[in-house]
Amino acid sequence: MDLQRTETYQEIISQTIAWEEAINVVRQTTPAFHTQWQSGHITNAIFTGCGSTYYLSLSAASFFQEMTGIPSRAVPAGELYLYPQANIPDRERTMLVAISRSGGTSETVAAVQRFQRQGSGIVVVISNYPDSPLAQLGDHAILIPAGREKSVAQTRSFASMYLAVTAFTAGLVNRNDLVDEMAGLPALGNRSINNYHDTAREIGENLDIDRFYFLGSGDRYGLACEASLKMKEMTLTHSEPFHFLEFRHGPMAMVTPSSQIVGLLSETRRTHEKAVLDEMHTLGARILSLGESETMVNFDSRLPEEIRNVLYLPVLQLLACSRSVAKGLNPDQPAHLNAVVSLDL
Amino acid sequence: MDLQRTETYQEIISQTIAWEEAINVVRQTTPAFHTQWQSGHITNAIFTGCGSTYYLSLSAASFFQEMTGIPSRAVPAGELYLYPQANIPDRERTMLVAISRSGGTSETVAAVQRFQRQGSGIVVVISNYPDSPLAQLGDHAILIPAGREKSVAQTRSFASMYLAVTAFTAGLVNRNDLVDEMAGLPALGNRSINNYHDTAREIGENLDIDRFYFLGSGDRYGLACEASLKMKEMTLTHSEPFHFLEFRHGPMAMVTPSSQIVGLLSETRRTHEKAVLDEMHTLGARILSLGESETMVNFDSRLPEEIRNVLYLPVLQLLACSRSVAKGLNPDQPAHLNAVVSLDL
Repeated sequence: MDLQRTETYQEIISQTIAWEEAINVVRQTTPAFHTQWQSGHITNAIFTGCGSTYYLSLSAASFFQEMTGIPSRAVPAGELYLYPQANIPDRERTMLVAISRSGGTSETVAAVQRFQRQGSGIVVVISNYPDSPLAQLGDHAILIPAGREKSVAQTRSFASMYLAVTAFTAGLVNRNDLVDEMAGLPALGNRSINNYHDTAREIGENLDIDRFYFLGSGDRYGLACEASLKMKEMTLTHSEPFHFLEFRHGPMAMVTPSSQIVGLLSETRRTHEKAVLDEMHTLGARILSLGESETMVNFDSRLPEEIRNVLYLPVLQLLACSRSVAKGLNPDQPAHLNAVVSLDL
Repeated sequence: MDLQRTETYQEIISQTIAWEEAINVVRQTTPAFHTQWQSGHITNAIFTGCGSTYYLSLSAASFFQEMTGIPSRAVPAGELYLYPQANIPDRERTMLVAISRSGGTSETVAAVQRFQRQGSGIVVVISNYPDSPLAQLGDHAILIPAGREKSVAQTRSFASMYLAVTAFTAGLVNRNDLVDEMAGLPALGNRSINNYHDTAREIGENLDIDRFYFLGSGDRYGLACEASLKMKEMTLTHSEPFHFLEFRHGPMAMVTPSSQIVGLLSETRRTHEKAVLDEMHTLGARILSLGESETMVNFDSRLPEEIRNVLYLPVLQLLACSRSVAKGLNPDQPAHLNAVVSLDL
């Protein structure tokens, strides 16, 4: 199979069109929601999804709490559905942000419906499908058709919804300056794809590597989770995400010379994060570092740290996609999986 | 190496002595803290630790929120230290529960010190070492010396601290009936060790298995994480934890006939959870189910679901320990690891 002929590859390299749409959609729709938000007296926020969109929720919740000061958490939709008491605070007015590419994932729909029956608060939906069941349920919906995909594994859909939630959050707290700066991201994404396309292929096609560990802290932990899931889905390779400092507390027992450690470095805490990568290098692991500067993959974006995280995604998606083809697999159709999971709940 | 001569094995099979001490210590010390708790107007709780004790925190936070209705979350101590704003709610009175076997883990100590400098709320410490730095820092400390270990990988220390946090939570909400019922757990634990010792060895010694997935939802997710970490630390085998329904959203691509799926089943949501195990069985995976009844490992405890979770631990610890010996490894000394992680922070 030729890498460039796969849907997944085409969806990855063309994704910045969906980034652009995501930012524009949020610019156009957030003002209408802003009044509801200001009068809503929201005391906490829950971000939910399944698989990739749960990982998106982890990053989104971290960013949302930092920006708004409102306690925010990510919960897998299946857990929110099965264990609402352990996850939805009593006596609080909650904003539930439900994220689903298809807008039809059964647990996410069921969790939202139960939340609404209980009258717990407001629901915001983020999806790539305007006609989906979830889109109809939301008090507010952010819909980005340009993120739609033919592949089962989410790549540009993920990035588009991630950018949408970032811009949405900035808009809610009147940081339109940040939303304006985000307009530079598509061009930066294209540059990063061009500059590091070959780096991603080189590591992806190296089949001496038999395990991947993706390290990310703060807002970047969810992105590390997502990068790890791409590796599993597309390449059937063992891979796991960890918070940087957590990796030392047990998981590093698994480090071997055939391990690839991928570090999603921040600027502000890079000393602590880089120390983990250096220690793993001395244990024999291969290291790939990504970040704004002085890393193996540099974004050189000059954008504020809190809005440029989407730049970590394309290179890591390309890495998984090229490994998939190098292993003789089809990245468009992962083993055992379907694009939408439907359960009877 | 003879399994029965390892420290880890001896610590696992003798752990119910530490369970007993944990329950007794909480009974004796919680009343003194109760007044402070009632006047503290706590609006949220954070449970923190590193590695095993972060996983303990995940289960504890879920249980604490269910029992008290107070929004509760688990945060790795490294993240709490590096990213306090994304994790500690502003303008709220927080109870921080810091859990550390040694009481000396550098990130946990640093996170507590920063929390106290910021005057964010009350600190409760749970540890096996009364003379440790953390024990001195807490406004309240729950100390269980009988949980101490010679091994690097935590087994009975984990169970003892987990029981302590369960009894402590029940005591805070005046559910002394539950604490009384917990007194039956040590005998039930011993029975489970006797009844399922051979089951654990049989699966542990089967080296045809090359990957383990531990599934648990609600309070049991953190225990699934811990069981997975034991497998990594002691046996250097690929293993990962997932929430039950999350497993279908991508990770199941990795299922093969050499996969062992271990399900920590609940009673109340078992229909949904069991459906995942059945589906993985049809994909060819091996299944081990644990639960109160109608599972491969039955507790037959007749105790309320919310207080008997500790019973999942011994069998899963034995499984890892016997696999370690079967692979020619030393379970007492995992690769690359030390019992206490010390960093310059």
